[in-house]
Amino acid sequence: MTASELPSWNAGPAKRAVLDFVATATTPGAGFIDVADRIAAFDNDGTLWSEQPLPPQFDFVFRRWGKEVAADPLLASIQPYKALAEKDMSFFARVAAQDPETITPLLEAFGRSWAGTTPQDFDAEVRVWLETVKQPKFDVPYIDLVYRPMLELIEYLKANDFRVFVCSGGGRDFMRTFAEETWGIYKENVIGSAADYRYVDGQIVRTESGLGGLDIGPGKPEHIFAQTGRLPVFAGGNADVDIEMLESARFALLLNHDDGQREFAYSTGAERAVARAAALDWTVVSMRNDWNTVFGTVERVR
Amino acid sequence: MTASELPSWNAGPAKRAVLDFVATATTPGAGFIDVADRIAAFDNDGTLWSEQPLPPQFDFVFRRWGKEVAADPLLASIQPYKALAEKDMSFFARVAAQDPETITPLLEAFGRSWAGTTPQDFDAEVRVWLETVKQPKFDVPYIDLVYRPMLELIEYLKANDFRVFVCSGGGRDFMRTFAEETWGIYKENVIGSAADYRYVDGQIVRTESGLGGLDIGPGKPEHIFAQTGRLPVFAGGNADVDIEMLESARFALLLNHDDGQREFAYSTGAERAVARAAALDWTVVSMRNDWNTVFGTVERVR
Repeated sequence: MTASELPSWNAGPAKRAVLDFVATATTPGAGFIDVADRIAAFDNDGTLWSEQPLPPQFDFVFRRWGKEVAADPLLASIQPYKALAEKDMSFFARVAAQDPETITPLLEAFGRSWAGTTPQDFDAEVRVWLETVKQPKFDVPYIDLVYRPMLELIEYLKANDFRVFVCSGGGRDFMRTFAEETWGIYKENVIGSAADYRYVDGQIVRTESGLGGLDIGPGKPEHIFAQTGRLPVFAGGNADVDIEMLESARFALLLNHDDGQREFAYSTGAERAVARAAALDWTVVSMRNDWNTVFGTVERVR
Repeated sequence: MTASELPSWNAGPAKRAVLDFVATATTPGAGFIDVADRIAAFDNDGTLWSEQPLPPQFDFVFRRWGKEVAADPLLASIQPYKALAEKDMSFFARVAAQDPETITPLLEAFGRSWAGTTPQDFDAEVRVWLETVKQPKFDVPYIDLVYRPMLELIEYLKANDFRVFVCSGGGRDFMRTFAEETWGIYKENVIGSAADYRYVDGQIVRTESGLGGLDIGPGKPEHIFAQTGRLPVFAGGNADVDIEMLESARFALLLNHDDGQREFAYSTGAERAVARAAALDWTVVSMRNDWNTVFGTVERVR
């Protein structure tokens, strides 16, 4: 361990567990992991960036749906537009509980909003949002609320020949817009809930069908297997929707949001994950105690 | 260009076109391609290995279905088992024509045969086949019929910071079994027709549903986009089912099987592709004239 490893992490059991795992995985002997098997997977919302008061992609989507309701006020009588019009954020928060009465209308609405668009259209729309919209509590662009300790961890894993994937309930194509510059991983290493596309007249065009196979709960290991042919050996998450992904990995890291001063303090949506962490001896990271810095960017290893 | 580049390729317009494209793509100026965009995609059957008399995976599948018919003779009255029992290979060859009367029962049968198996089970079954079964014309394992010039091309592209994907109508999980040792690319770089899996009790288990989204025709660029977030800049294929993938790339290579002496001479299933190659100025590779060696392995660049 050199002083430059994970500089935003305070010395303590969490940092020690990460360094020990990687040292063991990369040293011949018991616990060594073949380079081919070194797949790491991280959740995004609440694991790589702030997800309060709602995951940032909701802000992006709400702006679009707000315009749609303004153009067609009848929409406000059906979900999810109704919840948006009534500012009923509890409706959206029930995604975390994998409630079909929230998820089904949400996915249908996603399908409707961007049907017929090309990836170029969608990227441009996300980029405008990234550059112009600010998070309400911190008054900075959402992309400035990425956790520097996690970016260091990604670089550290890459430097040890891990191939790092992000596996989030959020939209695959939404995340791919900023994955390369923000996380330093290629678009193909981003797994998420995904729209359906067709190749028509030489163009990739989004269809009207809703997002298929939501990337939460068991969908996470299923999609990691589909994308990579393996389950991860290292996984990081923060919520109940990450439990199956964390269980599927040899080393599991659970981020605990206990820092109301520098970020947010909450445990809603993570109650079962905290219990599993205790039962399965996962590495629990206290944002307050284990991180000396919360937000920021890093130098890239490669 | 050094003498060591593409040694199994004879000097000629095809080799020259490949070297020129890569030189232009990697040299600042017009035609330069950002490293992030350097996605190459190759078909497998008939592009990376021999596909006559039928793509090798059919041999693997037929052995399984043969056992199923022996155990349940009534199966022989329905497709695809009927065609197998009657040795009606024309039924299977109609996959290339994307005939739904072949494809639908084929996919359903694939779904039935391996439902409930784990990736470990399936890998083991493929490995036994790879090690014990020989191709009828050459009397060697199918895996020995991989084209050395194409392996050199994969290494050459990788050495120039291309990320190489295989995108085949064949089974994703079938190909992933041997991708790393044979092609030198990770499993996550293999795109193909894929079974559906669920994560149940800590295990990835194949479901009964048939393969979804066959990876042929427009499915190829659709799946490359889904897997990578991009369309390829370099694509290689040999048949009509590769046309859309080849059209979606900046540089397209079409392999012409004109070498009845060293491999096979045939153009069935490639008639439209040959016409598109002429119309769109694709690089057509003559196996007979452009390759001084057909089969073999290569040293890995990395």
